[in-house]
This record gives sequence, structure tokens and C-alpha cells, in this order.
Amino acid sequence: MPQFDMPLERLREYRPELAVPGDLADFWSATLAETREHDLAATFEPAGNGLALIETFDVRFAGFGGHEIRGWLHLPAHRTGPLPAVVEYLGYGGGRGLAHERTLYAQAGYAHFVMDTRGQGSGWSAGDTPDPDAAGLPQQPGMMTRGVLDPREYYYRRVFTDAVRAVEAVRSHPEVDARRVAVTGGSQGGGISLAVAGLVDDLAGVATDVPFLCDFPRATTLVDTDPYSEIARYLKVHRDHVDRVFATLSYFDGAILGRRAVAPALFSVGLVDDITPPSTVFAAYNHYAADKSIEVYPFSGHEAGSQLHEVAKLRWLAERLA
Amino acid sequence: MPQFDMPLERLREYRPELAVPGDLADFWSATLAETREHDLAATFEPAGNGLALIETFDVRFAGFGGHEIRGWLHLPAHRTGPLPAVVEYLGYGGGRGLAHERTLYAQAGYAHFVMDTRGQGSGWSAGDTPDPDAAGLPQQPGMMTRGVLDPREYYYRRVFTDAVRAVEAVRSHPEVDARRVAVTGGSQGGGISLAVAGLVDDLAGVATDVPFLCDFPRATTLVDTDPYSEIARYLKVHRDHVDRVFATLSYFDGAILGRRAVAPALFSVGLVDDITPPSTVFAAYNHYAADKSIEVYPFSGHEAGSQLHEVAKLRWLAERLA
Amino acid sequence: MPQFDMPLERLREYRPELAVPGDLADFWSATLAETREHDLAATFEPAGNGLALIETFDVRFAGFGGHEIRGWLHLPAHRTGPLPAVVEYLGYGGGRGLAHERTLYAQAGYAHFVMDTRGQGSGWSAGDTPDPDAAGLPQQPGMMTRGVLDPREYYYRRVFTDAVRAVEAVRSHPEVDARRVAVTGGSQGGGISLAVAGLVDDLAGVATDVPFLCDFPRATTLVDTDPYSEIARYLKVHRDHVDRVFATLSYFDGAILGRRAVAPALFSVGLVDDITPPSTVFAAYNHYAADKSIEVYPFSGHEAGSQLHEVAKLRWLAERLA
Amino acid sequence: MPQFDMPLERLREYRPELAVPGDLADFWSATLAETREHDLAATFEPAGNGLALIETFDVRFAGFGGHEIRGWLHLPAHRTGPLPAVVEYLGYGGGRGLAHERTLYAQAGYAHFVMDTRGQGSGWSAGDTPDPDAAGLPQQPGMMTRGVLDPREYYYRRVFTDAVRAVEAVRSHPEVDARRVAVTGGSQGGGISLAVAGLVDDLAGVATDVPFLCDFPRATTLVDTDPYSEIARYLKVHRDHVDRVFATLSYFDGAILGRRAVAPALFSVGLVDDITPPSTVFAAYNHYAADKSIEVYPFSGHEAGSQLHEVAKLRWLAERLA
Amino acid sequence: MPQFDMPLERLREYRPELAVPGDLADFWSATLAETREHDLAATFEPAGNGLALIETFDVRFAGFGGHEIRGWLHLPAHRTGPLPAVVEYLGYGGGRGLAHERTLYAQAGYAHFVMDTRGQGSGWSAGDTPDPDAAGLPQQPGMMTRGVLDPREYYYRRVFTDAVRAVEAVRSHPEVDARRVAVTGGSQGGGISLAVAGLVDDLAGVATDVPFLCDFPRATTLVDTDPYSEIARYLKVHRDHVDRVFATLSYFDGAILGRRAVAPALFSVGLVDDITPPSTVFAAYNHYAADKSIEVYPFSGHEAGSQLHEVAKLRWLAERLA
Amino acid sequence: MPQFDMPLERLREYRPELAVPGDLADFWSATLAETREHDLAATFEPAGNGLALIETFDVRFAGFGGHEIRGWLHLPAHRTGPLPAVVEYLGYGGGRGLAHERTLYAQAGYAHFVMDTRGQGSGWSAGDTPDPDAAGLPQQPGMMTRGVLDPREYYYRRVFTDAVRAVEAVRSHPEVDARRVAVTGGSQGGGISLAVAGLVDDLAGVATDVPFLCDFPRATTLVDTDPYSEIARYLKVHRDHVDRVFATLSYFDGAILGRRAVAPALFSVGLVDDITPPSTVFAAYNHYAADKSIEVYPFSGHEAGSQLHEVAKLRWLAERLA
Repeated sequence: MPQFDMPLERLREYRPELAVPGDLADFWSATLAETREHDLAATFEPAGNGLALIETFDVRFAGFGGHEIRGWLHLPAHRTGPLPAVVEYLGYGGGRGLAHERTLYAQAGYAHFVMDTRGQGSGWSAGDTPDPDAAGLPQQPGMMTRGVLDPREYYYRRVFTDAVRAVEAVRSHPEVDARRVAVTGGSQGGGISLAVAGLVDDLAGVATDVPFLCDFPRATTLVDTDPYSEIARYLKVHRDHVDRVFATLSYFDGAILGRRAVAPALFSVGLVDDITPPSTVFAAYNHYAADKSIEVYPFSGHEAGSQLHEVAKLRWLAERLA
Repeated sequence: MPQFDMPLERLREYRPELAVPGDLADFWSATLAETREHDLAATFEPAGNGLALIETFDVRFAGFGGHEIRGWLHLPAHRTGPLPAVVEYLGYGGGRGLAHERTLYAQAGYAHFVMDTRGQGSGWSAGDTPDPDAAGLPQQPGMMTRGVLDPREYYYRRVFTDAVRAVEAVRSHPEVDARRVAVTGGSQGGGISLAVAGLVDDLAGVATDVPFLCDFPRATTLVDTDPYSEIARYLKVHRDHVDRVFATLSYFDGAILGRRAVAPALFSVGLVDDITPPSTVFAAYNHYAADKSIEVYPFSGHEAGSQLHEVAKLRWLAERLA
Repeated sequence: MPQFDMPLERLREYRPELAVPGDLADFWSATLAETREHDLAATFEPAGNGLALIETFDVRFAGFGGHEIRGWLHLPAHRTGPLPAVVEYLGYGGGRGLAHERTLYAQAGYAHFVMDTRGQGSGWSAGDTPDPDAAGLPQQPGMMTRGVLDPREYYYRRVFTDAVRAVEAVRSHPEVDARRVAVTGGSQGGGISLAVAGLVDDLAGVATDVPFLCDFPRATTLVDTDPYSEIARYLKVHRDHVDRVFATLSYFDGAILGRRAVAPALFSVGLVDDITPPSTVFAAYNHYAADKSIEVYPFSGHEAGSQLHEVAKLRWLAERLA
Repeated sequence: MPQFDMPLERLREYRPELAVPGDLADFWSATLAETREHDLAATFEPAGNGLALIETFDVRFAGFGGHEIRGWLHLPAHRTGPLPAVVEYLGYGGGRGLAHERTLYAQAGYAHFVMDTRGQGSGWSAGDTPDPDAAGLPQQPGMMTRGVLDPREYYYRRVFTDAVRAVEAVRSHPEVDARRVAVTGGSQGGGISLAVAGLVDDLAGVATDVPFLCDFPRATTLVDTDPYSEIARYLKVHRDHVDRVFATLSYFDGAILGRRAVAPALFSVGLVDDITPPSTVFAAYNHYAADKSIEVYPFSGHEAGSQLHEVAKLRWLAERLA
Repeated sequence: MPQFDMPLERLREYRPELAVPGDLADFWSATLAETREHDLAATFEPAGNGLALIETFDVRFAGFGGHEIRGWLHLPAHRTGPLPAVVEYLGYGGGRGLAHERTLYAQAGYAHFVMDTRGQGSGWSAGDTPDPDAAGLPQQPGMMTRGVLDPREYYYRRVFTDAVRAVEAVRSHPEVDARRVAVTGGSQGGGISLAVAGLVDDLAGVATDVPFLCDFPRATTLVDTDPYSEIARYLKVHRDHVDRVFATLSYFDGAILGRRAVAPALFSVGLVDDITPPSTVFAAYNHYAADKSIEVYPFSGHEAGSQLHEVAKLRWLAERLA
Repeated sequence: MPQFDMPLERLREYRPELAVPGDLADFWSATLAETREHDLAATFEPAGNGLALIETFDVRFAGFGGHEIRGWLHLPAHRTGPLPAVVEYLGYGGGRGLAHERTLYAQAGYAHFVMDTRGQGSGWSAGDTPDPDAAGLPQQPGMMTRGVLDPREYYYRRVFTDAVRAVEAVRSHPEVDARRVAVTGGSQGGGISLAVAGLVDDLAGVATDVPFLCDFPRATTLVDTDPYSEIARYLKVHRDHVDRVFATLSYFDGAILGRRAVAPALFSVGLVDDITPPSTVFAAYNHYAADKSIEVYPFSGHEAGSQLHEVAKLRWLAERLA
């Protein structure tokens, strides 16, 4: 994969016109208000994980529509005092997996919460959370076009709302310091992080890697890789729904939601990434409204900085969660 | 694609052991009884199709769970007397499409009913029927693993029931001769045809082409093409659900349901078909309980006989529907 | 396949310089005159098609060089008065197929003539017409480089001439209204339609979908898909024939021939079509000399609007053939 | 490419039943007699080749139907006395190329004749010989199905006849010792060599590498690579011509024609060759009627022994042509 | 990927004849003796890892030829008493990576040693250990054919020796309980584990996942995936070295070395694994000389049980290291 | 492969800024001086080649570090007087092969020397020369990143030095006219030719085809084909070494070294070459300091002009070596 997108100097200035919906703020405040009518009902059940250094809890809380959302909360086995927390959202297709799978931030000494993504979790790790509001409408296989004809029915309305509630759930845990909560994730998890950054105004930090769900108009015409191309394939069959689909997506675009963010953010991007192409990441980065920095990996694809970036991220989080 | 499956002489004798569920008959009679508690409620609205020779009606009827199922009924514009009917089920991923798209059996002088497949119709033609019972459980993208952990929740329980009701709907039309109704379809449509052959006992004929949904244990380990491999990919992640998944599938296997059939059947098969590999088609053919014949196309893949076979099929239907 | 060609706003203005041969008019008038020295000799034999609503005739007429060209003429079984006619040319690699295969315009009430393409018909449907003037010169497999070193020997000289004669043949049928004849086709069939539009001056309409054989200099350097790349592969071996080959092709370029057209035209294009890339379609569209409109399908490939566009086309034809 | 065909020990014994046509001998003796009614008319024009050590002559002679066939004759610049000769036939798709391209056997001191293959020569090197008898019938792109419905019309009837005449042409040259002529070639060239071995009874040797055109029934169902799969693709469309096509091919099968051979032969084979799979080579080898040996290259594909085998071949030829 | 290898019931009995070298024991005892002439010289430098729960040490020790080999030793930050240890070997192409990357067994409470693989570490994670004895002979890119013409020069002689020394190094650490040391690894790491099992006689356990480097004669002719196919590609060029290469490989075959093992072993295998195909894993398993069990994952490829198997492995290790 | 790079008119003017190292001249003069401290020690052993017209000698000489480098010297069997010579360098991955393999320039009457490339020769033809200075550092499989962190350790420092010595070796042969020596090669051989043109100042000519190793910064971000992408893959893992790697490569860039050339040069380029993309070839051509010309093959890939260009090259060499 060569550097197929813009050269770096143009990426740094790429700030596309965004089709911000007139009622964006209302849409989301109504959505969250409606959800908060359901009690959060967060529960934390100890779960075996085979690890001596980390305790894991099976978490349940009420997400969008009051639906039960699952997750893992990992805490250091030896811990003292209230802990800063990192909420992690997952990449497309995966689920929270098994209790011992993703523990990096707990190893680093934080409360580490991994949120299951509703309806996902058969792609590369298993999930346990259904998406009960799925209307069952004809759609392209995958999640990207589930309910895409109407912002109120769109799949990511439910997911982003769950993600906001996940922050509330982790804050409700007695051993967590609610003032020091950061969110993070890569790809879809990065897109959800940006959305949460736009919907929650007192986060300590947002570490978003190669965020998906940004600058849909460019993404869907620039690359033919999944998952963006689920949308393209849908529009190939439903030729008369182009405008309607993009109208829906504008409520969920990370470049648009990030314009409402107030927490500091760390981005990362790979210049040969054909899953979340660099221009779409820079669209979000350049529009992001708060303090921000970005790590650029010139020869990396969607994996971007991976472990090397984890080092940078642990350092960045340490500064913000201290 | 070379001839990767058994040679023809072994295919003709391939009759695998089938894991017939002990309560198969009860499962299906309970399912149909439950559905019939809902009024059929079939309606036929004239629909513009741009064609001078054929009249098309937009059909609605109550399928599984009383859910509204859509379809097209095509009638010759010049017609006299009650017409024999052909009910057509569709291939995987497609929907009933537009009003003028599939009219072959109407051109041939029959009432031609095209049933929309619930939840499908974004793959190659558009569909209009949701699958409202989709529980939203984590699943492999596609339909094959929707609810696959429980036969009562499995997607094809709803589809096969819809398909039985489609026969009832077309029979309810005043211009149709209810005694002369055949079913047909290719691939998924062929699998549904076999299921209907096992669930409805007074059909005039069953023309099933390259039927999908047959001999799951062999299909899922022999080919790595979609849609069978949706199941394999699911089991790659959900490694502990192998037995449970195959237990569910046994209620929906065309080779098993065809053992209950009484109507004469015409099969077709392509010997280099890697979507519905020939051994799985012969598994169904060799187990089919009633009068039967099969057209073998040695160098054909999943398209099998296509137009050449349409000629054979029109002739075969003419004999059975005369 | 992402949108790899120009953005839509540039496509709408893309009007490449064309290398119009100085003797283009003479070349074609001489070619047609020479052909017309052979008697048209159109015959129409009834052919079984298994359909009750449509009658099909096996057609033979004298094409280029007096060679016998085949086709199907479909007429509504119930018909009155002289009928408007639609002449359909086929996509690359296919033949007229079986008698019942392509009947859309007959279903719509027209005389529908399907012309076999000489020497083709083993790719996706069978053909019955040889190309007896094939000199047997070394060429790239396929048709694109057959005789390509000399416009007088080039394969499409014969095909375009056949296509003009097909219009004459359908007009010679006693039940056809010769003043109301339209031509149509997709891909190669669209390219042939454009050529006929430039060579016959009293057509009622030209419905050309994703036309092939347009703007060869751009097509052969922009995409590496067949059939355009047959030319590129030929020039890869015959490195010293580049100029000569493009000189030949300029006599057969739909963008050039369409500059002579007088009949109104309906085009269609898919913006992610890598077989007949959108800029080459717009090259022909923007140069087309008569009344015209184009349907743009942003997320479609070579299939472009398919059934949805058929609806538009039936409506458009109804206006022009009424 | 793994070893997909039989293991070596079974290959050594693989001797399939062959469908030898009853009139095979008559077919070929009539064909050759008919051709010999045309004068051989061999001419040898000096041609520039840029080489100091080799003289090249542009050869023309009358092949099948009296058609002019081209070739290169290379002679050592310093030569004395009548020379033994090697006639080389080419692989599929290529032509004789330029005058300096293929000179190995001349470098080794022989008269080296390279026969152009009629109608080929746009695939990897250029050819100069048309196939004027090509009827222009619809066929799969390529040569394999040109005229395949009738042995008298089949393309290889013309090619094999040309190849026999090429031996006669080289023998007619005054500096060639007509008693010491060997034939050789790889792939298609190997298949032609086998055919010539069955049609000419006084050759000094036959060095056939990875011969194509052998054991068609197995080849066309075992691999899906070109050129064998041209036949499979043709039969995929022309579903009703399976028997007729294989009847034609049986007149041209190297395994069948080799049963008539009397000259000693050296074969070579690669065990992971998916173009001319090893079982089809062994089919020919095991049926070959005269003295024979075979070099087996276990990890080689269609390139088999290439340069290493050239060493073996030069040694083998030296013994037979001394 | 379908189940391309033997069915499970045959795999369970697949016990190929092995070409055990006559001097195998001497070869390895000489190799180890020679290496042990160099002082082990293990050093453990604290290394920053960004983690609060785990301390990491940068390890150096003298491997084959006295060459400096690197690794990471992870210890729980809160620890008491001598710890059981797990030595982990890595998959092909990767290196030990960064200090925080692979800590699972430390999280589980063990001393966790990750050995860098000499000369590797540019494929998916970075390595820090050169392979200074590489003679620079022409070889296929990759490691598989480095020095493959002579067992004394072969790359894996150096690697397996390093691996034995790694066990000695970890045992030399004051906080490790030398009697409770297990080895583990997947793919190449699994193959190295089997070799160490055959070369070290007092291990507490061997957990080998989808082991590579087993049953070379079958592996290299059954699959065409890297890294096994590096050998096949080498032999494609070096056609005359087949026997010599397999003679070398027999000194390094995990199926052969495992015949000398005394420690209990846990294997895992995926039935659709085309990197280390299941029959080659079963070859090693069925020949393994000591107590053993195997987890079979029917629909898994090379990832086999991954996280689910980690759970099983942690449980199995807990029993053996308690 | 379409024309993915710049259009020809821009290529003709493409002259990128080059990062010429300040100590380039010193680096190379020191390197050569150091090498020349070793005696050249050229030996020429007669080798059997099976050819009557050409005599071949197995050559050994002392290259970089005094390491023994191998080659073939081909001389016409009938020769008189001192001969002009052509030194040929090989493409990536291959070795000098067998004694009879590459003799074109000897057939043309020259002394033809083929230099083996150290450490290569398992890709498409066999090599006999090790690269004993390979440090065994972790690298991407292949040669491109061997020692790439330091110009003094980089693989091509050794190769380019060998190549300079090869010219000296051929000049030392008593039958060679040392004043008339040209160098040539394609791809890697073309890149080596350019380097030698910059390091040896009395060559008679430089015929470089599709030179590799030119304009690394563009090449590594424009194409994702091997071998350039070995560098990209290395930097994908070693994300922190980007600057250091390009600093090393600047000592070996043919566009940079060619700025020092004084001998006339003939280049060739294919406009759809995705291995050595045309802009990188033109970068070298446009910066080349001496008399030059270039043959452009518009529809050719990496094969560029192949045999047709050989004709041009033989003519060009004849003029310069006369």
C-alpha cells in the first residue's frame, strides 16, 4: 500500500466543509435525556481471569433504551485509594472478549473499563451484548447501514449513547475517582472516543487512534475497504438513497462531533492506512475544538503506531490522570 | 475452479448420515400452528411496472409472528380463467427488487409470485421486508448466524414459515387455481423450496436449483465461500459453540426437510459450484423422498444451467401445471 | 472500488481533444455503400420460446460483407397495428442467447430486436454468428485487437456495419413502424448504439448505458481491466505499433462518432465503474451532438443504474416512441 | 502452490484409459496428404540479427492449406558440412519473436529452426503468421476452442500439420543433414512435439518439456488455469456441447498421438505445475510408445527444470544427433 | 479456508515415518557442549515499561557461539519468594518488541521470560539480537534456508541452542525457582518449545501451540504459505539440492526432537490452519514421547484457540508450576 | 496496471531535489581505496557450457573486503585480437546461473562478463557468491534493509564495490581491450550500472534498463511492490528509524551517483512499470551528468522494451565499442 492519500503537508491543512445538521445539539441532548430516564443500574460481579495481579469484574449497566450493556472492569489486585480510570471502546467487529484479554491500562495502575459494543463480537473476539433495537430492516451485512435511513434509527445512535453511559458507569464505582476519567480506543473505538468527547464535557483526556466514523463523504469515495465500503455497497443497490444516508451519517461524524469537544486529545495516524485513510483522520483532527496533538507514522497502515504508540499513550495518560 | 468435489459417479451415491432432530415434526407443526393464529391478511395492490403485457400487484401478507411480508404478484395482462401459479423464492442477499424485474413465469402465462426475503435485499436487489424478530445478538455479518444458538430463534425458522405462508397467500388470490401451485428458486431460493416441499403436502411441483442450506456439516468444512463460511467464521470466534450451532442447523437442513416431501421435484447442479458444492446438492437430492430428477451441468459453477435450465424448467412446469 | 476517476464536477466539463480522422465521413459512407450492395435478405422464422405472452422470431439478415447475421425479434403475442421498435446491442463477450432470454422491451409492448454480435457469444451467453472476415492475424485473445492495424480490417468496422443493417432489418418487418425505432445497449452495446447514432440519421432515440469504445487514449491508460486492457496488452508486446493502433481506433470511437448524431440520447454512468470509466463516458456525452441527458449513479460500478435505470429508460422510450 | 496432484509413485503408474478415435490414422493421413498437395515452397532469406556468431534466415513455407508459415533458421556463422537440426515449437501465446531471441541450439552448433505458431504471437513475443482458416465462429478468447466442434475445423489440426511441414522445410535446406533432425519445445511446444512424434516416423529425437495438450479430460477438470480452462469456460456457456468437444480433442491429445511414436523421447515435468499438471504429463509419458526417459523436478511448477534441464537436454541431443 | 487436510479421525492416527538422523543425539550433545564452553554471562538490567504492576528487566546472555542474546524478564512488582517461570519463544518474523508488550504470564504471577529470536524482528515486532554467524550464502529471503545445505550451518541450530540457554539464563536469576520452569510459544515459538523439550530433560511443562518446524516433508508439499514455502521456493531454484536440504531439516524437526521429550506437554491445533497444517502438528503430537494432551479447534486457522486457549493454558500451567 | 505515475510530459521534466550527502565523494573514495588494498586476484577457469560457439570461464576475483566474487566470462570460440567487453550486472534475487544461460553479448562478438551478486541467487537463478560481511542484524527478509542503519554497513556498499572491481577484473584479462568496456543491466543491474558510472570514469558506455535503486523517497511511497517495499515494511515496524534509513540510502541512490558520471548512457523505461516506477527512472535520467538518451515504452511494465530494446542496445553498443 503506497501513500495513496494526500501528502503530509496537505493533510496538516485539510479541513473539509462539514455538513453540520442544524439540530445536532438538540438531537443528542434529547437522545441522552431519554436514555437517562432509565436507571443506570450499574453492577460489578467478580469474574475469574486466571491472573494474579489483576481483579476483573463483569459489568452490566443500562445503555440506550435501558438495554443491558456488558463490559469488564479491571482493577490492580494491590490497590489503594480512588483510582483514575481509562474507558476503552473497541474496534469494529470485536467484543469485550474474555476476562483476561485487554488489561494494559490496569497493568499501568488504572481502573480499566472495556465496553462491549452492542451487536458486535463475532469478528475477532466474542461479545456478549445484543442490539435489541435492531429493526431488522434490509441492510448491507455489518453494522454500518443498520437503520441508516433515519438518524433516530441509526445503529451508532445507540452505541454512542451506550458509550456515554459507560463513562457514567465507571464513575459510579466506589474505587474510581470520577474526576480523572479518560477515554480511548482505536479505529471504531477511536471514533466512539471522539463522539464521547463531543457529548461529555468533563473528561480528563481523549486518546483516539486512527479514528473510524470521520468525514464519511470522503471516506466512502476514497477507499473500498470494509467497513466504510459497507455504506458504498448499500448505496450501490439503494441508488436513490444517497442524500438520505449522508444526512443520517452527519449526526455521527467524528469530525463534526469533535467540534464540540473540550478535553485535550491525543490522535495517531498511519499515512498508508486504507481502512481509516489519513485525510479522514486529519479532518477530525483539524476540526477538533480543544487542545490536541497527533503522532504521525509515515509507513504505517491501520495499525499505525501500535506498541510504540502505546508507550506514548501511557506517558500522555500519566500526565493527564496524575 | 476445477472439479474440487467428488466425481460424478460418487456424487450419485452420496447419501450422508443425517442428524435428524427427534422433535423435527413437532418443531415445525408447532411453528406453523403458532403462525396461523395470525390472520393471513393477504392484500394485492396494483403497482406500476412500465410493462404492457404484465400486470403487477404489490402483495402484503402475515408471515411468521404475524409480521408483514411483501412480494410481487405478476399476472398476464390478457388472462382468462383461474391460473396455475409459480411461487419464487430468492437467492441470498437479494430482495424482490422493482416491479418489472422478475417476470419469467408470468411471461410463460402463469401467476408468478415473488416473495421478498425478510431482512435481506441490499446485496444485489432491493428488499422491502424487515426481520423484526432479529434479537440483535452478536453474530457474523450476514444472516447465517442470526439466532443460531437456538432453533426457535434462528433466522430461517422465520423465513421458512414466511415461505409456507406465501403459498397460502397466492392460493388466496381469486384468479389463482389453488390446486396447481409450484415452488421454485435457486440457491437460497432452492433451499427454501426444499423446506416448503417438506412442510406443504399438496404442491404440484418443486423446481430447486443449486439449493443452499443443505448438508451443513459438509458444506461448512468443504468450501470457504460465502454464505456457508459465515458459519465457519462464527465458529472460529465462538470456538465453544460448535455442537450447539450444528444442532440448530439440523432443523433447517434441506437434505433433512426434503425427506418429508411428497411433490415431484426437479433439481439442477453445477459440478464446479463452490458456493453450494455438488455433494451438498446431491445429499439433498439423494435423500429427497418423492419423485425426482436432476440436471447435471459438468463445467458450470453456481450459475449451473441458468438460461438453458430455464428452458428445461418451463417445460417441466408446463407438464405439472397443465 | 473507490471513486478513482475525476470528481463529478470535472467530469461534467471533461471534453477531451479528439483525434478525428480527416476521412471519417468517407470511410463510413464507403463502408455502408459497399455493404448495401448486398441484398438485406432479412428473414423471420418463428422460434419456440416457452412463453405465452411473447412470440419470438429467429432473424437472419446480410450484414457487413453480406455475411449472415442472426438475431431474435420478440413481438407481443397480442398485438395490433404497426409497433414501435427497440433494437438492442449486446455487451462484450455475449451472444443473443436463447429465445426467451432478453424480452424486456417486448414485455413493454414494443417490437424488440436483439442483434447477435459476430464472433462473440462464449463469454456469458451463447452466440450464433461467426465473423468470417477474421483474417486470423496474431492478436491479443479477445476482439479488441482483431485487425487493429488497419481501420479497414478492424473488427468493429464489421460490427458497426452489422448494427446499421440491423436497424434496416427491423424496419423491413411488416409489423414494425419504421419511423419509430430506437437503439439501446449497455457497455459494448452502448458503444455500438453511439456508433449507430452517428451513422443513421432518423432514429427516434438512443439509450446508451455505460458505453464502451469511447475515448480510447484515456481508457487504455486509466484502467487495467478487460476489455480495454486487451489493447494495452497488445501494445506491450507490439511496442512499435502504438500510433498505428490509435489511428485505427479513432474511426470507431463513440466520442467521435457521436459528434455526428442527430437523435436524442439518454446516457447512464456509474462513478466507480472501472470497466468503462466515467471520464470516458462523459467524453462521449459531452461531445454528443444532439439533445441529451445523463443519469449519474455515484456509488455504482459498471452495472450503473441497472433495474432502476430500466425504469427510467422505459419511461424515456415511451415518450420518444409514443 | 503445493503438490496438488497425485504423489509421485502414483504418477509413475498413471495410465488413463484413452478415448482413441476409430479413424485417427485416417484422419491424419488424409490431412497430411491434402496438405502435401501444396508445394512446400520453403524459402530462406538472410535476416539481420545483430549477432556476430550466428546467421539467421527468415523462413517461409507452405503449411496446412498451403498457408504461408514463418520461422527463423539460425546457423552458426562458422560452419562446415551438413548440420544436424533441432526444430523448436513455441509455448502458447508467443510468436517467433525477433531474429536474435531464441538461439540456444545454434549456439550449441546445430541448425536451429524456430516455427512461428499461426495466429499466435501477441502474448509474450510477437508472431508473424496469420491463421487464415479461422472461421470466426463464436469462441472463448484464445485458441483452445477455435473450431472445437469439429476435428476438421479445429485449430490444432492446422498447427500440427504446420509442424510436420516445418520438419520437411528444415530438411529441404542444403546445409542440413535430413537424417539427423530432432524436435523440441515446452508446454504447447511440448504438445506439438508429441504430435509430430506421432506423425513423422524418422525423427532422431523428441525432447518434450511439460507438454500441454495431453489428457484433456483430466486436465480440464483438475486445474482452472489458462489455457486448459479456456475449454472449461467454453463448456460453461455451451453446456450442451460437452461430448462433442471432447470427441474433437481426442484427435489432438498428445497422450493419444504419442502411442504412435517411434523416436526416443526425453520428457520433463514439475510436480507443482498447475498449468500442465503432472498427471497429464505422465499420462503422455506412460503411454508413449517408444524409448523414453523423464526428468522429475519435485518443487518446480510449469518452469520445471528450465536452465538445469537445458543442460540435460543439450547432453541428450548431443548423443542422438552426433 | 476449508478443512483441506485429513479429517480429524485420520489426524489422530497420523504417525508418519520419520527420517531420524543416525547421529542426532551426538549432533546435539556436541552442539550444546560447544556452546557451554562460553560463560552464560546472564545479566538483568531494569528497564522502563510504563507499567505499575510489572517490573521488566533487559536480559543478555551468551547463546550459541557465545553470541549475545537479548530478552525481557517480567516479574510481578509485588512478589514474594522464588517464582516459577515461563520461558516464551516467539513466532516467525517477530522480535521481543518493547518492554511492555508481552506480559501475560507475569500478570498471572510467574517470572515471564521472552527470548528474542536472533536475526528476526522486522516482521511484526522489533528485535534486538543479530545472527552473527550468518554466512551470507545465497538463500531464499527469510530464515528458513539460511545455511540449509549443512546441519552445522543451519540457522535453527543456533536458535535452538539459544533457546536451551534461555532456560539456563532464567534459572540463574535469584528470584526464580529453577525446578519449576515451563516453556511455551506458538508457531515458530511452538516448534522451538518442542526442540527444547527434546534437549532439556527437567522442564515442568511444555505448552506448544500450532508448532511450526514439524514434519517438513509433508509441510513443504502440502501448503504454499510462508514460511514453509521459503523452502519450496529455494528448491524450485536449487533443483539439485532436494535430498541435502531434507537431510539437514531432519535434525531440526519438532516431530523428531519431541521423541526425546520427558516433560508433559499441552498442544493446540486448528483444523483449517494452512500455515502449520494440522497433520504436521499431529505428526509431532503423535510422536511426542511423554505425557500429552491436545486441544482441537475445528474451525480455527493458525490462530487456533488464541484467547480461549490462553485460559486453558493458564489453568494447565497452574497445575504444573504450583 | 494503468499509467499510475506522472504523464510523460511531466516525467521528462521531473528532477527532484536530492539529499546528496556532504561526504559522498569521500565515502566512496575511502571505500574503494580500502578494497584495493586487497589484491584483485582475478582467475579464469574454463567451464563446460555445452555450447560449440562460445567458451565460458568461471571467474573469481576479490571484491569488497577481499571477498571472493564469482562470475562467468563468455568469449566467442572463434576470436581474434583483443575484444571489447560488456560487463553485465543482474536483477534482484538472481545469481549468475549456469554457464550457458546469459550469452547475448558474446553472441554479438564481445567479451561478456556476468557478475554474480553477493548473497543473492535463490530467487530466479542460482548464485554462488556469499555475502560474508552480513552482520545478521534483524532485517526485513531480502537484501534491501541489510545493514540499512549505517552506510558503512549497508549491503549495497559491498555490491557496488564488487561491481567496480568486476570492471577491473575483466580489464585484467589478456584478450580484453581495457579501453573499450561498457556496463549494462536491468532493474537492480541497471541501478548497479548507474553506480559504477559514478564510480569509474573511463567507461565506454552505460546501458541501464529500468534502473532500480533510484529516488528512494519517491519510490518507497509510490509503489507497494517488492523490492522497494522491503524498505517500507521495515519502517512499518521500525517506526523510529525513518530518517536514519533515508540518510543511509542517499549514499546508494542512482540518481545521486549518476550526477558524477562521465560516460554516455542509454536508458530505457516502461510507463506502467510498478516495480521501478517511471518517475524514479526519470529522476535518475534527468540528473545523469553525461551524454544520454532514453527509450520510452508507453504500454510496458518492468519488462520495458525487452527483446526490442536488446536490438537497440546492440546497435548502441556497436557504436560505442567499435
